[in-house]
Amino acid sequence: MVSVPTIKLNNGVDLPAVGFGLWKVTENTDDVVYDAIKAGYRLFDGAFDYGNEKKAGEGVARAIKEGIVKREDLFIVSKLWNTFHEKERVEAITRKQLKWWGLEYFDLFYIHFPVALEYVDPDVSYPSGWTNLEGKVVESKASIQETWQAMEQLVDLGLAKSIGVSNFQGSLLIDLLRYARIPPAVLQVELHPYLVQTDLIKLAKDKNVAVTAYSSFGPSSFIELGWDKASDTPPLFEHPVIAKIASAHNRTPAQVLLRWSTQRGIAVIPKSNNPKRLIENLNSTDFDLTEEELKEITGLNRDIRFNNPSDYLDTLRIFA
Amino acid sequence: MVSVPTIKLNNGVDLPAVGFGLWKVTENTDDVVYDAIKAGYRLFDGAFDYGNEKKAGEGVARAIKEGIVKREDLFIVSKLWNTFHEKERVEAITRKQLKWWGLEYFDLFYIHFPVALEYVDPDVSYPSGWTNLEGKVVESKASIQETWQAMEQLVDLGLAKSIGVSNFQGSLLIDLLRYARIPPAVLQVELHPYLVQTDLIKLAKDKNVAVTAYSSFGPSSFIELGWDKASDTPPLFEHPVIAKIASAHNRTPAQVLLRWSTQRGIAVIPKSNNPKRLIENLNSTDFDLTEEELKEITGLNRDIRFNNPSDYLDTLRIFA
Repeated sequence: MVSVPTIKLNNGVDLPAVGFGLWKVTENTDDVVYDAIKAGYRLFDGAFDYGNEKKAGEGVARAIKEGIVKREDLFIVSKLWNTFHEKERVEAITRKQLKWWGLEYFDLFYIHFPVALEYVDPDVSYPSGWTNLEGKVVESKASIQETWQAMEQLVDLGLAKSIGVSNFQGSLLIDLLRYARIPPAVLQVELHPYLVQTDLIKLAKDKNVAVTAYSSFGPSSFIELGWDKASDTPPLFEHPVIAKIASAHNRTPAQVLLRWSTQRGIAVIPKSNNPKRLIENLNSTDFDLTEEELKEITGLNRDIRFNNPSDYLDTLRIFA
Repeated sequence: MVSVPTIKLNNGVDLPAVGFGLWKVTENTDDVVYDAIKAGYRLFDGAFDYGNEKKAGEGVARAIKEGIVKREDLFIVSKLWNTFHEKERVEAITRKQLKWWGLEYFDLFYIHFPVALEYVDPDVSYPSGWTNLEGKVVESKASIQETWQAMEQLVDLGLAKSIGVSNFQGSLLIDLLRYARIPPAVLQVELHPYLVQTDLIKLAKDKNVAVTAYSSFGPSSFIELGWDKASDTPPLFEHPVIAKIASAHNRTPAQVLLRWSTQRGIAVIPKSNNPKRLIENLNSTDFDLTEEELKEITGLNRDIRFNNPSDYLDTLRIFA
């Protein structure tokens, strides 16, 4: 069995450095999760918005029932969607998501985006995405402080062991840290060699907030969505610098891309539909890149953000 | 007399599109302000941090005394420094700054940076800059919401006609708008063809927040500070694209750089020590660039931010 290192969070919790991302897992999610557990994955990064929490929970339940893992061996992550930012919504939807998963608590629960949208009843539209029932993007007035205080209550209630934020800019994270009773344990952001975010990584380190990278493979994570920006950007898997370094270590480009993060203490949550690659991704922490190689990869930066709501909604400019 | 157009703010106030920036005006500030008023300037953009409010006020007083202008003809702007973000500090320092200026009210008062620092007594250190009396950068816990509520009280008290924010990122501005009783009238940010911030400008427009550009001339504004980043970047005044467009309109490069903002409804606050250029800068709104020229200038973008506290402090990563 692969041994995955952990990252110590500011609350003493150990975060597995490599997990399985459930974004865009749309088919047989139960089998995908079950197989990933058998392959050695312990962290699953889900979200209301991914629309697959019930199925993911079935995979978890099967693995536990068969004695492959115990609940406490797993690290289950989910996220609060934009439509539940009002303080009175947070606990109820978290309990609903936990019920879907068949769990008593999340190991980590994030604010998915610093975006507050009009409530949409999940029994009417699930997952509701960025628009209300009339197909409109309508912002709500719930401040991040209001939402964060409700997130803190999830910890008080034992519904989340750790809480974090995703897709936050530096100044918003700094502001959150001013009023947080429980500081965020993790910041999850898009991070790959085309978007290296050096300053944000330094900020998180300074403030003792761990970082989880999403879309570690850059454009490849977005090709399947049919996004031009992704198909117009040279794939990282085939980039000569990545290919050269992968070859030097007798590893796959994917493993190099993941190691570029984990070696710097940043967690990763790759996804793969391919059983071989699934294991390769998990098995990506038992080699080290040289300092020069890390720098060379960081030097590929183009400040290209693929997951920017304003690109497809022409509003919600949270990265401006 | 030059006629300067105005920009209608979200509270009905008219903001002059061209003003005089008092940053780095260190000598004879009273004469500089007096002469600028005689030259036709009506807006003066000051700040606690610039250390010259008393002198600037003397220039204003002389011009008013001589009947060149009345108080209501002027548009006096100042800013709250980082060390006064606690709610109980805001009114007192604003009154002190008004006293320095010899004024009853500011036309516009900004939060200078989304940075809250430990209080430093202005009678002991003025301007105190980024460090406390021990030379250390020490953050305080005042949230932007706390500070903003105190800013709103300045309006209630009649000490500021309009209030705004400076150096805010998109997501922080969005969050502020959620809880603001009085929305910010203006966002002041670094803006020039090397830092065009298209998304932030769109956000401000969407949210009905006017924009004031500072450092419209790009690196030139920072050369005098001895910053490598500025001296290593090709001057905009000599950039072939700017020079070509200036020549086509028989204008100076500075006028083209200012017009690139004002033509898009963005206010500017240039500074000059040279009487001729001072008038040229003010007289920069009576010609129009073509749509193609505007785009060509915007195309010079390099996402270079010159005024980033983290560059010189290795902390306060408010633009991460």
